[in-house]
Amino acid sequence: QTVESDERALLNVNEGIRFSKDSLFLMNFRFRMQNRAGFNSIYDGDNLSIEQFEMRVRRLRLRFDGYVMSPKFQYYIQLAFSKADLDLETGDIAQPVRDAILYYTVNQNLYFGFGQSKLPGNRERVISSGNLQFADRSIVNGLFTLDRDFGLFGYYTLRTKRSSLFLLKGAISTGDGRNASAFNNGLSYTGRVEFLPFGAFTNSGDYSEGDLEFETKPKLSIGITLSENQKAFRAGGQLGAELYEARTLNSFIADAMFKYQGWALMSEYMSRSAVDPVTRNDQGDVRFAVVGRGVNTHLSK
Amino acid sequence: QTVESDERALLNVNEGIRFSKDSLFLMNFRFRMQNRAGFNSIYDGDNLSIEQFEMRVRRLRLRFDGYVMSPKFQYYIQLAFSKADLDLETGDIAQPVRDAILYYTVNQNLYFGFGQSKLPGNRERVISSGNLQFADRSIVNGLFTLDRDFGLFGYYTLRTKRSSLFLLKGAISTGDGRNASAFNNGLSYTGRVEFLPFGAFTNSGDYSEGDLEFETKPKLSIGITLSENQKAFRAGGQLGAELYEARTLNSFIADAMFKYQGWALMSEYMSRSAVDPVTRNDQGDVRFAVVGRGVNTHLSK
Amino acid sequence: QTVESDERALLNVNEGIRFSKDSLFLMNFRFRMQNRAGFNSIYDGDNLSIEQFEMRVRRLRLRFDGYVMSPKFQYYIQLAFSKADLDLETGDIAQPVRDAILYYTVNQNLYFGFGQSKLPGNRERVISSGNLQFADRSIVNGLFTLDRDFGLFGYYTLRTKRSSLFLLKGAISTGDGRNASAFNNGLSYTGRVEFLPFGAFTNSGDYSEGDLEFETKPKLSIGITLSENQKAFRAGGQLGAELYEARTLNSFIADAMFKYQGWALMSEYMSRSAVDPVTRNDQGDVRFAVVGRGVNTHLSK
Repeated sequence: QTVESDERALLNVNEGIRFSKDSLFLMNFRFRMQNRAGFNSIYDGDNLSIEQFEMRVRRLRLRFDGYVMSPKFQYYIQLAFSKADLDLETGDIAQPVRDAILYYTVNQNLYFGFGQSKLPGNRERVISSGNLQFADRSIVNGLFTLDRDFGLFGYYTLRTKRSSLFLLKGAISTGDGRNASAFNNGLSYTGRVEFLPFGAFTNSGDYSEGDLEFETKPKLSIGITLSENQKAFRAGGQLGAELYEARTLNSFIADAMFKYQGWALMSEYMSRSAVDPVTRNDQGDVRFAVVGRGVNTHLSK
Repeated sequence: QTVESDERALLNVNEGIRFSKDSLFLMNFRFRMQNRAGFNSIYDGDNLSIEQFEMRVRRLRLRFDGYVMSPKFQYYIQLAFSKADLDLETGDIAQPVRDAILYYTVNQNLYFGFGQSKLPGNRERVISSGNLQFADRSIVNGLFTLDRDFGLFGYYTLRTKRSSLFLLKGAISTGDGRNASAFNNGLSYTGRVEFLPFGAFTNSGDYSEGDLEFETKPKLSIGITLSENQKAFRAGGQLGAELYEARTLNSFIADAMFKYQGWALMSEYMSRSAVDPVTRNDQGDVRFAVVGRGVNTHLSK
Repeated sequence: QTVESDERALLNVNEGIRFSKDSLFLMNFRFRMQNRAGFNSIYDGDNLSIEQFEMRVRRLRLRFDGYVMSPKFQYYIQLAFSKADLDLETGDIAQPVRDAILYYTVNQNLYFGFGQSKLPGNRERVISSGNLQFADRSIVNGLFTLDRDFGLFGYYTLRTKRSSLFLLKGAISTGDGRNASAFNNGLSYTGRVEFLPFGAFTNSGDYSEGDLEFETKPKLSIGITLSENQKAFRAGGQLGAELYEARTLNSFIADAMFKYQGWALMSEYMSRSAVDPVTRNDQGDVRFAVVGRGVNTHLSK
């Protein structure tokens, strides 16, 4: 199984369809369909009957990765068409564009991206939906994730004399989320450091949830993200309902992934704060920025 | 001409584009564009001048069929982008996903589907839009069709010692139509039997309207569908405006297709009933489930 | 670089992906992603600080060109997915279909189109967004362009005994723009003549803005368009907010492109008029058809 990265283009994959023309052009085409059936029971002290069925196409995505002119100029485009993908469960503006980013590779340790993609925020959010253990991400992620944004991204791998690695990731972005159309003059600044003391995981396992590779040696990744989203006008910065006034949001995220012989432990702590998170309009209605903290931990074998 | 089935994946087609990798992966890519120009004249006793022009892209669809890992696991995805396709003529939620279903083939007589696709309802609805005789389906179909739904589908071919065949089709689905996002605990149950006394039609002709194959021997298919859509909250179950209260809808459909030497006769009877189809809100406004019956008959050579 | 034409299918391109099956089927698949970051400063006599950032995926398009059955039957489909592309910046109906047209080639000088595509209006509008010099078209274009429409198109090349050429282009269309769903009985009539006294430009340079080909001899194209849009109900005919009453709009466009040794001069004059452009509803609210004139000129080397 390919571990899909949402932080770079996928050039070498076995699934999907591949077109290439010498080293001038490459396109990998892949799609993802996730259908779901489930039900909710609410125990009211009396019975445990089915309250609600949820059955639907949860995710339906087309993904195009490749390069143009030279392998140094890579692109990654992801379009999404299910109702939830289009943000039509919560909003009324159809948003088919998830990722649309052009990468420039400086050398094997450094590359930059310009466009719309996932911010280097909490680990569970950056893990591709095909590599999750559960059908959905945690409710902590729902409240505090940095999600996707449009801007300039940078990725640097700092190799040490030993096997240990540092990954440095940063972004300057609008802070207003996918396909935002008008902005004030406040941007969002995101920085992230990941430390892998025992070296790289097999098959990018630090960004997939289960240890499908059965790591023969312990592998660990510790990540810390700091983000300041200036003059955000949505309740969660990149996500959420509009606020009545802009607020500057500060996020702190610490997470870790540990894998060894089929065991996988992932944990993440996330917090967001703002000076005066409550906003009011002239009628005295209240909308507030989502501040607070949460923890999400998985253990699997 | 390929007769497109909307009840299974198309693996062997001549038109379109085909990608395959051993027996691990297959994708057929096809598209359909139907442009239309027309006008309406309404004779008011006085003149017969043109009242209205209708010119537009009526259907624009991308279709992906194939299998992954093994020919037993087939998929069928259809995305649609014209305004009518997106349900933006009648609603305001863009719905690009028409079909998104994964099939599991047990043996040559039995397969199951899980996802969103056409219910085994009236014949004209299941005939693909590329195989219709008219530009649109009948107004009876508009009122009483079961349309598409999300759920579990099963298809069984019962072969007899002679050439005659029985096709048994069934589905358990949400009953709320394409891309419905929230459900109560009422599901929809659909069962259909088709009897082909003189054996299979040439080139799946029981699901195309004209006898393009000039059947040298008479061919007949008789179909009967029963459906119970429990706690439906749309006027037509899978389609239509929302009701004020949920209603259980019962549908009965009988249809037949006869073809011989270029002649094709298709007829279908459809009816829907509900106990107390009228729903009211607190203000006394009324919305009703669409109940009644209708007949649609075509003869062509 | 390929100069993309929005007035015919692209059959021979070097970029993108090409599928063909003998002379029965051809599809070229291309995509275009344009990401943009910018800011506005408004000098208020006091400071020149940044007022607003605009960063987003401006254009994201998939293009399919080719033929079916025979090279005489060509198609051109363009789907678009960015927020601006979908018309969701200004409206609330998602419009992914930009072009969807079938061409019939009579001979090398004459072909017809049926479907939705760009009208033969002002030159800058017809130049594909990948061949512009600036990121966007002019504000004159924004007010007075004929844009895209659905209808019947005809293109004729009149060759003279010398190298000079006349291009005759015409369209009968709905006059209501992309994906319009209901029409009155008023159509739109567009005619255009282009005169190229020194013959054809290298690599279709009359429809790209810069002289990337460094024409060794002077090349000139002069174009004149006349359009009458009967019973238009949008402020700009094919574009704009709805009027309270239909109006007949008359447009006159004159434009020219001159290229020589890397220099490119493009200029266009556009005007639109209507009898009584102001419409009122019963409450006395006012909406008006956009009438007036403008000039857009570029010089580049």
